[in-house]
Amino acid sequence: MTTTRSEERLNETLRQVQALLERHRVLETMAHRQEGPKRELLESLAHRQNLAELGARLRAIHAADLAHILQSLPTEDRLLLFGQLQEAHAADVLVEVSPAVRDQLLAETPRERLREVLRRLDADDLAYVAEALSEGLRDDLYASLDEAKRDWMATQFAYPEDSVGHLMSRDVVSVREQRSVGETLDELRSRGELPPQTDAVYVVDQRNVFRGAVPLRVLIVREPSAGVSDLLQTDVVSFTPTDPARQAAKAFGRYDLVSAPVLDERGKLVGRLTVDAVLDFNRRESELEALKRAGLSGEEDLFAPVLASARNRWMWLGINLLTAFLASRVIGVFEDAIASLVALATLMPIVASIGGNTGNQTVALMIRGLALDQVTPANVRHLFAKELSVGALNGAVWGSVMGLAAFLLYSNVALGGVMAAAVLLNLMVAAVVGVTVPLLLQRTGRDPAQGSSVLLTFTTDGMGFLIFLGLARAFLP
Amino acid sequence: MTTTRSEERLNETLRQVQALLERHRVLETMAHRQEGPKRELLESLAHRQNLAELGARLRAIHAADLAHILQSLPTEDRLLLFGQLQEAHAADVLVEVSPAVRDQLLAETPRERLREVLRRLDADDLAYVAEALSEGLRDDLYASLDEAKRDWMATQFAYPEDSVGHLMSRDVVSVREQRSVGETLDELRSRGELPPQTDAVYVVDQRNVFRGAVPLRVLIVREPSAGVSDLLQTDVVSFTPTDPARQAAKAFGRYDLVSAPVLDERGKLVGRLTVDAVLDFNRRESELEALKRAGLSGEEDLFAPVLASARNRWMWLGINLLTAFLASRVIGVFEDAIASLVALATLMPIVASIGGNTGNQTVALMIRGLALDQVTPANVRHLFAKELSVGALNGAVWGSVMGLAAFLLYSNVALGGVMAAAVLLNLMVAAVVGVTVPLLLQRTGRDPAQGSSVLLTFTTDGMGFLIFLGLARAFLP
Repeated sequence: MTTTRSEERLNETLRQVQALLERHRVLETMAHRQEGPKRELLESLAHRQNLAELGARLRAIHAADLAHILQSLPTEDRLLLFGQLQEAHAADVLVEVSPAVRDQLLAETPRERLREVLRRLDADDLAYVAEALSEGLRDDLYASLDEAKRDWMATQFAYPEDSVGHLMSRDVVSVREQRSVGETLDELRSRGELPPQTDAVYVVDQRNVFRGAVPLRVLIVREPSAGVSDLLQTDVVSFTPTDPARQAAKAFGRYDLVSAPVLDERGKLVGRLTVDAVLDFNRRESELEALKRAGLSGEEDLFAPVLASARNRWMWLGINLLTAFLASRVIGVFEDAIASLVALATLMPIVASIGGNTGNQTVALMIRGLALDQVTPANVRHLFAKELSVGALNGAVWGSVMGLAAFLLYSNVALGGVMAAAVLLNLMVAAVVGVTVPLLLQRTGRDPAQGSSVLLTFTTDGMGFLIFLGLARAFLP
Repeated sequence: MTTTRSEERLNETLRQVQALLERHRVLETMAHRQEGPKRELLESLAHRQNLAELGARLRAIHAADLAHILQSLPTEDRLLLFGQLQEAHAADVLVEVSPAVRDQLLAETPRERLREVLRRLDADDLAYVAEALSEGLRDDLYASLDEAKRDWMATQFAYPEDSVGHLMSRDVVSVREQRSVGETLDELRSRGELPPQTDAVYVVDQRNVFRGAVPLRVLIVREPSAGVSDLLQTDVVSFTPTDPARQAAKAFGRYDLVSAPVLDERGKLVGRLTVDAVLDFNRRESELEALKRAGLSGEEDLFAPVLASARNRWMWLGINLLTAFLASRVIGVFEDAIASLVALATLMPIVASIGGNTGNQTVALMIRGLALDQVTPANVRHLFAKELSVGALNGAVWGSVMGLAAFLLYSNVALGGVMAAAVLLNLMVAAVVGVTVPLLLQRTGRDPAQGSSVLLTFTTDGMGFLIFLGLARAFLP
C-alpha cells in the first residue's frame, strides 16, 4: 500500500533503478577488461544476474512512473531499460511517456519487437501512439491489425486533433432498456471487470440509440428487482464527436463529470469521454497557452530541427520588428532634441520599458477576468477607473524616484521633471491600453491572449518615446 | 436528455432568462405609470405572473449553469435572480459562482435568508464558502451549526489553502474488512445513494486504519459470496492532509485517478480527494501561473481596491525600473557616439526589442520542457546548439532586412552593416540567455517561470545596446 507520498516514492524508485543501471555498467566494464572465456562468463553473469534483478524491479513499477523514470535518464540508459520491459508493460509505457521520448523509443526499438509491443495496446491507445509512427511503420502496423482495431483507428484519425472524437474511448459499458437491476448486474458480471473510469452504465435501445445513464453508485444500492428504466437519468451531458474538446473540458469542470457519452448525429452511442483524457487535455492546453503568449504556434517540440524552429518563429519576429521599427520612427522625429541633449537617448528606454511592464500586468488581469466572465459591460467603466488610479498612484511614486535619479545623474532640474512627468503619463497610458487591448481582441472574436502583448508593447513604446521626447522638446532649453 | 452541445444550450438559457427579466422590467414600469388600485393590481400581477414563470424556469437550470448566467448579468438583475432561487438551489449556486460574484451575493443577501441558504450546504461546501464571509457573518453562521459540521469546518481551516486537507471531502464510503461482497452491498444499500465521484469503497479495520480499496466497477461484477478482502487493492495512491495539492493533482493526472483516500500520519482514513476538486484546482493554478509571469502575486482580484492593487505591483515595478536603469547606463557610456550620429539613438531600441522577443520564445519553450522533464543533463548541450543555430539563422535573415532598412533611411552603408551585425549577435545572445536563465532558476530551487522574463529582458536590453553602440563606435567614422 502506498501511504507514502507518491512523489517521494517515485524519486526513491528512480534512485534504485539508477543504482541497478550503475551496477550493470560496472559489471560490464569489469567483464570487458577480462579476456577469453573468463570474459564471456563474467559478461553473461553480469547480464543474467543484473538484468534479471532489473527486470523484476521494473515489473513492479506503474507504467506512468516508468515513463517518468525513462524521461529522467540519459538516452542510452533509457533504451536499455525500455528493452528490458515485458511487451505489455512496454506498451503501457509508450502511452504514458512524453511525445519527444515516445518518438525516440519508437524510432530506436527493433521493428519486430515494436510490432509485438504495439499488438498489446487496445484500439484507443493504439490510435494515440500511431500518430507518432513513421508512415512506413504505420502501414506495417495497420496490416497486422484485426478489422475492429483498424476501423477504430480510422475513426479516430478522421476527427481533428482537438475534437471530442479524437479523445474519446470506445470502451463503453451499455445495456438494453427494460432490464431489471438484477439482470443488468448479471450481464455486467458476465462481461468481467468493467473498464477504468466507468462511473455509469449507459442504457440504449435496440438501435443503439442512447436513452440515459444509470450511475454505478445508484445501481449498486438498489434492489435487484427494480427496473433499470426507473433509475434512468435522462438529463445527461453528452457530446458529439465533432464537438471541440475545449468545450467538453469546460463541461467536465462545470458539471463535475467522470465520464460522458459521445453520440452521433442520430443519437447513437459511439464512444465515451473520460475525465483522465480531459485532465491530460487541460494540461496540454495550459502549456500551449504559455507558448502562444510568447508568439509560438505551440506545435514546436523542444527538439525540433533548426530550420523548422526558425520558420516557426519568423512571423512573430517579423511583426515584432515592424512594430519596433514604427515605434523607433517616433524617435526619428525628435532627433534634433536628442542631438542637443544626448541624455535623452539614455533615459528614454526606461520610460518605454516601465510602461510595457505595467501594461502587461493589467493585460494579465484582464485576460483572467475575461476567462472567468468577470468583465461585463456594467463594470468596464469601473475597471478603467481603477486601473487608471493604480497607474497614476504608481506613476507618481516611481516617477518621482526616476525623476530624482535623472536629476542626480545629469544635475538638470528640468530633465528630472520631464522624466517624472513622462513616467507618470506613460503608466496611465499603459493602464488604458492594458484594459482596452484584451477587450478589443475579444470583441472581434479573437483569443485575448494571443497578440495582446505585441499590441501593448507597441503602444507603450511609441507613446513612451513620444511623451518623453515631446515634453523634453517643449520644456528643455 | 441533453444531446445538444452544452455551450449552445447554456447561451439559449441565458437568452431566455434575459427575456424574462426584460419582460419583468417592462411590466414593472407599466405598473409604475398607473395610479392607485390599478397600479397595485398590475404590480402584483406583474410580480406574480412573471416571477412565477422565472422561478419555474430557474428551478430547471443546473446550479453551475445558473452561476454562469449570474456572472453574465448586470449587478441589479443578478441580485433579483438570486433572490428568486429556492434556498437549496441558491446554496449550490453560491458554491459554483466565481469568487468576485460570491462576495457580492454574500454581501447583498439579507442575513436571515443567507443563514437559511447556508444551512443547506454540506460541511465541505460550507467550509469553502465560509472563507469569503465577513468575520461577523462567519461567527453568526458558526453558532448556528451542529457540532459535526463545526468540527469539519475547523479541520479544513486548519490546513493551508493549497494543501490536500483543504481540498478534501469528508464524504467517504468505508466498510470493515472481513465482509463478503453480498454483505458489503447490503451495507451500501442501507446507506442509500452513494456520494458523487465515488469510484471505490474504502476498506478499514476496526480502528479506522485504511487497509485498501475495492473499485465499484470490480465490486459490481463479483459473486455476492466472494470475500471483500480477496478483491482488496492495496496498491492505492493515497495522500496525507498536509501534502501539497499541486503534488496530488500531478498524481491524479499520472495515475488516472477519480478519487483517492486521505490518511492521517497513523494511516487512519480522514477524508477523500476527488477529481472534480483537482480539475478546479488545476484551472485556478493555470490562471495564477499567467499572472505570476506578469509579476503579480496572483492574489489580486480584478476588482481589488486601488491602494491594495498598487502595492501588489510595486515590487515588480521597482525591479523592472532598476534593471531598465542599469541597462540604460550602458547607453550612458556611449553618449559621445550618439552625439556624433543621432540615428544610433533611433535604431538602438529595435536591436534591444527583437532580442527580448526572441529570448522570450526560447524561455517559454524551456519552461515547458522543464515541466515535462524533457530537459536532462544529457541533452542541454544539444539544446544550446539548436537554439544558437535558430538564433543565427533568424538573425541573418532579419538582420539583413533591418540593415537594409537602416541603409535606406540614413543612406549610410556602414550604419546598415552595424545594424545587421547587431541584430544577428543579439539574437544569438538571446538564445544563450533564454536557455540559461530558466535552467539556473530551476537549479537554484526556484520556479523557472517566475522572474525569468525580467532577467532575460535585462540581459537582451543591456547587451543589445552594448553590441550596437560598441560596433558603431568601432566601425563608424
